[in-house]
Amino acid sequence: MGFDKSLLSEDATLEALARRFPNSHSRLDLCRGDDCAIFKGDRKFCVSADLFLEDVHFRRSYFSAAEIGHKALAVNISDLAACGARPTAFFLSLGFDESVGEGWLDGFFGGMAALAGKYGLVLAGGDLSRSARLVVSITVIGEALDGAGFLKRGGSMPGDAIFAVGELGLARVGLLALEREGEAARTKWPACCEAHLRPTPKVEAGLMLARAGGNARPPALMDVSDGVCRDLPRLLGLSGELASHSGNLGAKLEYAESWLHPEVVAYWREENENPVLQTLIGGEDYALLGSCAPDMAQTLRKAIPGFRLIGKVTGDGELRCDDVNLAGLRGFDHFA
Amino acid sequence: MGFDKSLLSEDATLEALARRFPNSHSRLDLCRGDDCAIFKGDRKFCVSADLFLEDVHFRRSYFSAAEIGHKALAVNISDLAACGARPTAFFLSLGFDESVGEGWLDGFFGGMAALAGKYGLVLAGGDLSRSARLVVSITVIGEALDGAGFLKRGGSMPGDAIFAVGELGLARVGLLALEREGEAARTKWPACCEAHLRPTPKVEAGLMLARAGGNARPPALMDVSDGVCRDLPRLLGLSGELASHSGNLGAKLEYAESWLHPEVVAYWREENENPVLQTLIGGEDYALLGSCAPDMAQTLRKAIPGFRLIGKVTGDGELRCDDVNLAGLRGFDHFA
Repeated sequence: MGFDKSLLSEDATLEALARRFPNSHSRLDLCRGDDCAIFKGDRKFCVSADLFLEDVHFRRSYFSAAEIGHKALAVNISDLAACGARPTAFFLSLGFDESVGEGWLDGFFGGMAALAGKYGLVLAGGDLSRSARLVVSITVIGEALDGAGFLKRGGSMPGDAIFAVGELGLARVGLLALEREGEAARTKWPACCEAHLRPTPKVEAGLMLARAGGNARPPALMDVSDGVCRDLPRLLGLSGELASHSGNLGAKLEYAESWLHPEVVAYWREENENPVLQTLIGGEDYALLGSCAPDMAQTLRKAIPGFRLIGKVTGDGELRCDDVNLAGLRGFDHFA
Repeated sequence: MGFDKSLLSEDATLEALARRFPNSHSRLDLCRGDDCAIFKGDRKFCVSADLFLEDVHFRRSYFSAAEIGHKALAVNISDLAACGARPTAFFLSLGFDESVGEGWLDGFFGGMAALAGKYGLVLAGGDLSRSARLVVSITVIGEALDGAGFLKRGGSMPGDAIFAVGELGLARVGLLALEREGEAARTKWPACCEAHLRPTPKVEAGLMLARAGGNARPPALMDVSDGVCRDLPRLLGLSGELASHSGNLGAKLEYAESWLHPEVVAYWREENENPVLQTLIGGEDYALLGSCAPDMAQTLRKAIPGFRLIGKVTGDGELRCDDVNLAGLRGFDHFA
């Protein structure tokens, strides 16, 4: 409602955006510029939306503009990966004020566009607004592969293998180190900072898992955004909006310290904490967490890079890692 | 990254939400609770996203919680109406802090759910986060009617009729009066305040216009969110991201003062301004603005409540209302 001449104009912002993002895609009849984008709609599609807010999900003090653009989109793409979807399009709603100049904005769009280009996502629309703190709100749309459905949470059975794709524990160490040490953390904990600042969504692995479900009971799958301790009960349908409270599913994890990245072990040793348990508390790993029949697990293990068997589904209603009850460990809470 | 016990927990928020919003819909295979919502995807669909930010798009000082919930969704549904789409689903990403209590949140969800229910939209997902100022980010999805396509901007021809569906000019007066007088404006300018606080998207009219395009050159259509002065050139493809700069389209409007709401006339008379021109500067009307062949216009005028012929498309490259050049009038800029 105010007006400030030093704010980049809407036209200038749209021009900066147009330089980075193509405005057409084979799966859309119409991209940006009208009231709505129009999709061909001849196959099943899935949709997810995430907020990425300044001083809640990121800080400008140690994130570069390109890293903010990258991560805002990456955490959304990770939700598509967790459904075994092929990324198609995204919508970007962006709020900023005069603290953002042309250079920053171009870096932000550049980081986002590089990731979008890697997976063939088109920027299909969105909104611009003034906002005192940066607001990045993204909605992503993915489509089903030919002959494959989407993967969901739930449906696990006792005896199923529990697996993860991608490394756990790095992003949380990166966050803690960056919050404490700022930019200097990048030198001391490079892999952990990279995992926090520039996470890589596991799109290819999600697609391979979706194909595996074509002619068999499909894997249950989700991405680990809040840590294994909070997300594993959701995978099993024991918590979350889809919780059924039927049956008596549990899980027995066996997570070896030798699987951890050396930086993660070193960080938690310095803190006098158990590296494995702190890794399971985790958060923002954007690894995939799933379960499937044991024979399928053996096939997937050979086919998917970074696929690791980390335990099995039980029928005893308890969540344990070795002898520790996971219910007592609190996962990562973005909302808190 | 902070933690504050007085903030409503994520679980409590999700429970409040579940009380207001059903979690299933005939057009979706899976709604809320997984990484993505899953749509059947057996027909064309369209998507739009809008931000609705505190102290930019609304103020808590004179908007009730229910009005904020209503309007945040209404402005998004208006984009679907502008494409002639049937509303299907929406995604809500919401940021708030401890200034929001259970009562406020229930009012907000209640206002939003009432509007969603009216048009059969399901809340299919979204995100929650802490935020110092209220952040409401919505993405809507609509589907094409059987046998009808979506309506777009562009494609107007000289001689086409220009039409509007819905009243113009009230919302801007409402905004100006509420900003100046606060709650007291509701008594003095009730219709204008209602138009600003609780706009009604023109869904039924949009659907009727989409059907009209089934066997003929379809109408060009958009919604008037930034005022006729800014939006008419977009409708004609003369400005905006889809501008073609081809041809030499113009428009001659004839907008009678007798069409204006008495409150609008009274307000601008008090301000010593021309009520018609101030109405065309407008903003946030969420009326529909379109053009079509003259014979189709006569049919539509009889069929669609609130349909009004307001001018015609010309080939002289000028935008005029009576003798006034509209290019000199500045429309409403949300971004400023």
